[in-house]
Amino acid sequence: MRTLRAKDFGLTREVEYGTPEQNEAVSQIVEGVRTKGDAALLDYTEKFDRVKLEAAQLRVTEAEIQEAYNHVEADFLVAIREAAANIRSFHEKQMRQSWVDVQPDGTMLGQILRPLKRVGVYVPGGKAAYPSSVLMNVIPAQVAGVPEIVMVTPPATGGKAGIDPYILVAAAEAGVQEMYRVGGAQAIAALAYGTATIAPVDKITGPGNIFVALAKRAVFGAVDIDSIAGPSEIVVLADDTADAAYVAADLLSQAEHDEMASAILVTTSAKLGEAVAAEVEKQLATLPKADIARASIEANGAVLLADTLNEAIEAVNRMAPEHLEVMVNEPMSILGRIENAGAIFVGPYSSEPVGDYFAGPNHILPTNGTARFSSPVNVDDFVKKSSLIYYSKDALLANGEKIMTLARHEGLEAHARAIEIRLEREGN
Amino acid sequence: MRTLRAKDFGLTREVEYGTPEQNEAVSQIVEGVRTKGDAALLDYTEKFDRVKLEAAQLRVTEAEIQEAYNHVEADFLVAIREAAANIRSFHEKQMRQSWVDVQPDGTMLGQILRPLKRVGVYVPGGKAAYPSSVLMNVIPAQVAGVPEIVMVTPPATGGKAGIDPYILVAAAEAGVQEMYRVGGAQAIAALAYGTATIAPVDKITGPGNIFVALAKRAVFGAVDIDSIAGPSEIVVLADDTADAAYVAADLLSQAEHDEMASAILVTTSAKLGEAVAAEVEKQLATLPKADIARASIEANGAVLLADTLNEAIEAVNRMAPEHLEVMVNEPMSILGRIENAGAIFVGPYSSEPVGDYFAGPNHILPTNGTARFSSPVNVDDFVKKSSLIYYSKDALLANGEKIMTLARHEGLEAHARAIEIRLEREGN
Repeated sequence: MRTLRAKDFGLTREVEYGTPEQNEAVSQIVEGVRTKGDAALLDYTEKFDRVKLEAAQLRVTEAEIQEAYNHVEADFLVAIREAAANIRSFHEKQMRQSWVDVQPDGTMLGQILRPLKRVGVYVPGGKAAYPSSVLMNVIPAQVAGVPEIVMVTPPATGGKAGIDPYILVAAAEAGVQEMYRVGGAQAIAALAYGTATIAPVDKITGPGNIFVALAKRAVFGAVDIDSIAGPSEIVVLADDTADAAYVAADLLSQAEHDEMASAILVTTSAKLGEAVAAEVEKQLATLPKADIARASIEANGAVLLADTLNEAIEAVNRMAPEHLEVMVNEPMSILGRIENAGAIFVGPYSSEPVGDYFAGPNHILPTNGTARFSSPVNVDDFVKKSSLIYYSKDALLANGEKIMTLARHEGLEAHARAIEIRLEREGN
Repeated sequence: MRTLRAKDFGLTREVEYGTPEQNEAVSQIVEGVRTKGDAALLDYTEKFDRVKLEAAQLRVTEAEIQEAYNHVEADFLVAIREAAANIRSFHEKQMRQSWVDVQPDGTMLGQILRPLKRVGVYVPGGKAAYPSSVLMNVIPAQVAGVPEIVMVTPPATGGKAGIDPYILVAAAEAGVQEMYRVGGAQAIAALAYGTATIAPVDKITGPGNIFVALAKRAVFGAVDIDSIAGPSEIVVLADDTADAAYVAADLLSQAEHDEMASAILVTTSAKLGEAVAAEVEKQLATLPKADIARASIEANGAVLLADTLNEAIEAVNRMAPEHLEVMVNEPMSILGRIENAGAIFVGPYSSEPVGDYFAGPNHILPTNGTARFSSPVNVDDFVKKSSLIYYSKDALLANGEKIMTLARHEGLEAHARAIEIRLEREGN
């Protein structure tokens, strides 16, 4: 691992906007599904997934879901159920209530919170199909009270049109009752605009390849979308009290994701830096995905040395990492100074996979420095607010003139008159 | 006003994405400011605003702000101060706390809430410069605790480089201490990427022309942005208990905004529909902006007749209006059935301008049907969350195997090993 000065280091990565050709392809697919509905959906599925389906086969049947349970191991089922319960419990604590403020003159002002009505969750096919991501996308929506949650995922290629049983089981355990075997930009278009088979949704979440990401961007406005994730990142903030083997193992757990992933140690201890670099080499030797992890470490990994803990914290805040592990003496004492991080893992036993799979907080986190302004997926993402304004007659009579002053200053006479006509009729 | 059947009516309007030429122009301006900083900012200001400035003149001085107070009327100052206090009070009720859930095994899971660090508010120049919008953009950020709020607004054309004193006073009253005389796409680029004079922000809010909107879209990802507003909309839901003159006045208060604005009455009473249409004509006769209001009413206004209140409510939910006024008998009794609306004004005295200017709830609301999934501007928009995960040794030992099962199922061996190495060392 390369070693750099913390204060000289910045993470700057470009957002992926796709090539013009990719954008053009996505735009044609979206328009095709928008105008031709199911017919286009089936054509694209045959073209891209090499599976010929009829519209009636798009929806995954109850029998298929039940059959999937026969193909997953008992220990997987135990673990996914407990993870789901933990995720549900954590997200339930995020729930908020509508409120109203009643004032002495009878005025009532408030905020009414309602769940979105229908949400679509995209689940990628093949090796990127992660049951844990199904839970992390679905459960916050379910806790928010979204009555209709629909999952789309591409059929296995080669004619069988099957779906990974682990994905089906995870979705069923999370509470999804409506699933379609369709993927790619065409699935996103179907969710956004609807077809005869798939009713349109209010929001689309979930990861996907570049075509899925571009399609989400293209339909944004017609529906809401979640953020488009960049490569995964971990920053470990550690001092000489940290265990180098634990730090190295956690860095590698990010690095194995893909070569673009980034794993960075920020430390005040040159000795720890050297020990971690040595441990990374040692642990890489027996890792199945050593090629990917090594490429990631070489391209995007680093040990950043800081003279002081303050300087180290500043570097962390500048990077605004998706995942931050804090393994310093008295880690809780510096929490207040961490300004930007998607999730903060504190102490030696809070290894990142604890949060990726099991503890309860969401593993869908802001990447690419966006933790400066955005948040982990949470219940609020599936709730909309309406303002409530009930003005009493007394309140209008008392304040009408001031409202008219402001409206007339802005040249909006009809606004002023809407008040004036009431003052004239209701006033004494 | 045309009269239509409520059940046949849908509002579908396209999102404004600009012409290819506009997008190209914006992209050049953004790139220019990004690479050349203040020099480009001053060049574009000279080109578009016809004002030649030096970098040192970009920032509005404290003396200018003080001087602005000499140019606003006392009744304006009284009204804007009271409006600001109301807006502050309403938004303070939206504040949430960080929380942590402490479990018996010592595990602590939580959500840490922090304000964004620096926010930029765009205020358009000329006739679109609304002091009320300054309050509505700035105060939620201020209540959230954002320490640095910066306003940008174009200088008056023609060499004087002045800024509307009402805007300066509104900004000062809202608590803005950093203001720059720069507008257009170049101002958005400066806020997003920073120049020698203007430090970059984390989020940009506020309305603007098509170039400002396209620039916000272009820099999204580097910074957060608010939603891009469509034309303003009002829907009045009324039965035969409503006062036709009040309904007509409120419809016209939207219609005067611009020809694209939309003002719609949904009613179960054909008699009310006729009376409102007649009142609209009558009130139009003396309205200063009658031309605009008439064009808006003719193009986008309508009386929608519904057979039942249920059918009327369904039409409202389908339109998902920015503003909804409810003037039916016992209006509170139907609140639970309003699924989609930015702000709901209840009863005869809650005329829309009450909320536009004064009551306290935000007047920046979801347009174009996006109330299905989005919300009025609120304190949450200026707060970011970080998850907190502190796992105790006991918790890790108790749950480590399950975490490893899930990680190995997903083929992420390094994730499993990050847990395993701890179990091996810490377990008994």
